[in-house]
Amino acid sequence: MDEYSVIKEAAFRANVDLGRSGLVKATFGNVSAYDEKRGVFAIKPSGVPYEELTPDTMVVVDLDNNVIAGTMRPSSDTKTHSVLYRTFADIGGICHTHSAYAVAWAQAKRSIPILGTTHADHLTDDIPCTEEMDDRMIKGDYETETGNQIVHHFEKLSYQDIEMVLVACHGPFTWGKSAEKALYNSIILEELAKMALLSVQLNPSVRQLKASLIEKHYQRKHGNNAYYGQK
Amino acid sequence: MDEYSVIKEAAFRANVDLGRSGLVKATFGNVSAYDEKRGVFAIKPSGVPYEELTPDTMVVVDLDNNVIAGTMRPSSDTKTHSVLYRTFADIGGICHTHSAYAVAWAQAKRSIPILGTTHADHLTDDIPCTEEMDDRMIKGDYETETGNQIVHHFEKLSYQDIEMVLVACHGPFTWGKSAEKALYNSIILEELAKMALLSVQLNPSVRQLKASLIEKHYQRKHGNNAYYGQK
Amino acid sequence: MDEYSVIKEAAFRANVDLGRSGLVKATFGNVSAYDEKRGVFAIKPSGVPYEELTPDTMVVVDLDNNVIAGTMRPSSDTKTHSVLYRTFADIGGICHTHSAYAVAWAQAKRSIPILGTTHADHLTDDIPCTEEMDDRMIKGDYETETGNQIVHHFEKLSYQDIEMVLVACHGPFTWGKSAEKALYNSIILEELAKMALLSVQLNPSVRQLKASLIEKHYQRKHGNNAYYGQK
Amino acid sequence: MDEYSVIKEAAFRANVDLGRSGLVKATFGNVSAYDEKRGVFAIKPSGVPYEELTPDTMVVVDLDNNVIAGTMRPSSDTKTHSVLYRTFADIGGICHTHSAYAVAWAQAKRSIPILGTTHADHLTDDIPCTEEMDDRMIKGDYETETGNQIVHHFEKLSYQDIEMVLVACHGPFTWGKSAEKALYNSIILEELAKMALLSVQLNPSVRQLKASLIEKHYQRKHGNNAYYGQK
Repeated sequence: MDEYSVIKEAAFRANVDLGRSGLVKATFGNVSAYDEKRGVFAIKPSGVPYEELTPDTMVVVDLDNNVIAGTMRPSSDTKTHSVLYRTFADIGGICHTHSAYAVAWAQAKRSIPILGTTHADHLTDDIPCTEEMDDRMIKGDYETETGNQIVHHFEKLSYQDIEMVLVACHGPFTWGKSAEKALYNSIILEELAKMALLSVQLNPSVRQLKASLIEKHYQRKHGNNAYYGQK
Repeated sequence: MDEYSVIKEAAFRANVDLGRSGLVKATFGNVSAYDEKRGVFAIKPSGVPYEELTPDTMVVVDLDNNVIAGTMRPSSDTKTHSVLYRTFADIGGICHTHSAYAVAWAQAKRSIPILGTTHADHLTDDIPCTEEMDDRMIKGDYETETGNQIVHHFEKLSYQDIEMVLVACHGPFTWGKSAEKALYNSIILEELAKMALLSVQLNPSVRQLKASLIEKHYQRKHGNNAYYGQK
Repeated sequence: MDEYSVIKEAAFRANVDLGRSGLVKATFGNVSAYDEKRGVFAIKPSGVPYEELTPDTMVVVDLDNNVIAGTMRPSSDTKTHSVLYRTFADIGGICHTHSAYAVAWAQAKRSIPILGTTHADHLTDDIPCTEEMDDRMIKGDYETETGNQIVHHFEKLSYQDIEMVLVACHGPFTWGKSAEKALYNSIILEELAKMALLSVQLNPSVRQLKASLIEKHYQRKHGNNAYYGQK
Repeated sequence: MDEYSVIKEAAFRANVDLGRSGLVKATFGNVSAYDEKRGVFAIKPSGVPYEELTPDTMVVVDLDNNVIAGTMRPSSDTKTHSVLYRTFADIGGICHTHSAYAVAWAQAKRSIPILGTTHADHLTDDIPCTEEMDDRMIKGDYETETGNQIVHHFEKLSYQDIEMVLVACHGPFTWGKSAEKALYNSIILEELAKMALLSVQLNPSVRQLKASLIEKHYQRKHGNNAYYGQK
């Protein structure tokens, strides 16, 4: 037990669950858990199989990307996580995967259109796909710039309402109030990506869900008078 | 043991089976079981993971949507179930899912055409997709209106012959003589939705199965001289 | 133990394996095993879940469709099996499924083109799709006529070289020297159907594999100088 | 224990893992492990189910295709393996499968375009598809010629940078520093093949990933200053 045991445990559990989720092959994904008070997060060590993880293999990193605790190298995507924690107030976890349907939309450089109530139960807009990064960003501090690209894309969007994004030619990042919620959002995103792909195959001219239905589904689950779930 | 234990047990078992069926992610679905004599049904509590369910977590609701027994909130789709129980005489169970292939047809706003004998073994017509709901319905008593939309769509169809429907932009509802049969119909619907999607990809101009073959397959399984299954 | 125990055991094992194969939903499939000396075959009882089967639930039927042993109703597809046993000398087992990719080709009324060596390892030609049955056949002795339709289609084909067929608008039947081999052929057929569907999506104008490669792959596995497998 | 026990154990473990990987149906695949010092490799026996394998069923073969140890026939693809070991210096393992998405690209005779960072994490170019083999090669020493076709295709490519290939109309071969790595590459290839197929369905005009991003992702995992994985 140490002062980071809560976030190490949370990151450990979410990474193990990610490994069992069917979303990842090999070691293609990572989850982190944030301690807002201390300004540090625990993240998966880089390239380690999910079944070999323990809470003490988690690496604790501060928002300037310094390793604070742990003996292993953190995920190579660590700097992207720290940009998002620095910028998106109040989020408690981030998840990154290369799940196949979400990656397909990212590689096609298309946002995932909001086509039905499954999508509207979770967010009120398309799942956005960023612009491609330019060569300066790629050749510079790449993982930090990946975070910057996401943050830039959300200047006109609400990260509280839309807890997920596709980085063009790369794949999805999701976040939420906890590591567990961030992982949940990755699972939902993959299912929405699959449903939308099948839908546009059946009807290439299908259009966004009407505004009233988006609003209704979102409010019943997340609004002030929400009646989904237990009180 | 109480006077509702039969339907609570039936709803519990069908919801557990739904959770294991592969049709649902997270808590995207619910099954209910109806007691015609008492005019009440037992339904899944809202937002509770399938593995945490017990018979006593089921919520018993009457046809005016009053909670009769149980300490949890019923599924947010409860009012849709009650409309169907009020209108479709003799049905004993209802199942609602967001299974991916069925949702894809619903989001594409297309009925699933009857293309083969797998489909004809179960129903004699396309699996209908309702019209989109109008804003008045959405902004009003939404879940009740979802039921009304289904009922309206079946004015010209037989709910006894066609035990399933796609609500446009939403997903499937199925029913049957029991909760178990309603779940079975959701499993079948998803498989028919997948087969039909693959078929139209291979032959976009494929047409409905010929009437004689529809009739033959349905009669051998469901007709007066049915010879499918045991006597 | 009785005089039919060998074929009852073979049919039982193959039906259990079919249930575990992932090819079937609910009770959508059946396997039979043939005793050439006695002129009878053992087949799955109709509509019974795979996990409830035992060797003694298998139904023994002669080639005139008389039940010789067993207390349950045989599969509703029994007459199709008996036509094939009467006509295709030396086959020892038949399998019928509604596996999704094979059904998709059958519903699209397309033969599965031979596009690669996976296919050529098993047969030297397209997997044929029959013509649609006419109304006379459908309204007559339907299951017998389904067998006749297959037999008619093989007048110009070799049932020894091509151990599988798609019945248009219905699904696949496969056969082989044993029930186990017939099931194996259904598993292979489904995989070939999936590969071919994905291939024509990637290249709609793809053409049949060249004759020399078809011949080479088939001969190395099945020819006089075959060198696949153990001696 | 004998002088070949290391490669027999490595080949055994990789073939067992291949059988559990979901990449193969029946016995459609094989892995070999190479002992560079002795100039021999251990390979799966032909046509034997994965669950029946033991280290001692592995067949040890030299680079002239002579069986050095083992009582069973080696894989029918053995000569293709030996060509690759003779030509590609320093590789320690080879894997061959008929996984569905990779085969689909091979049957469509298309290289798999590099469309995203998942691909760029593993190789810096498209996954190449060879030309079709001509009749002389097919009718000659076929499996040796399959190896020659691969080697010919790599005259202008680096087998160190691109550890995988599609043989047109056939399927994938992968290699690496060990049998385990060769199998890993087959798993990755299948996932890349699936992602690319879904991507071109969503955007048929999608183009190769930009050079700077290919370079960045590859270098961070494999370059001199790689920071993926543990030191």
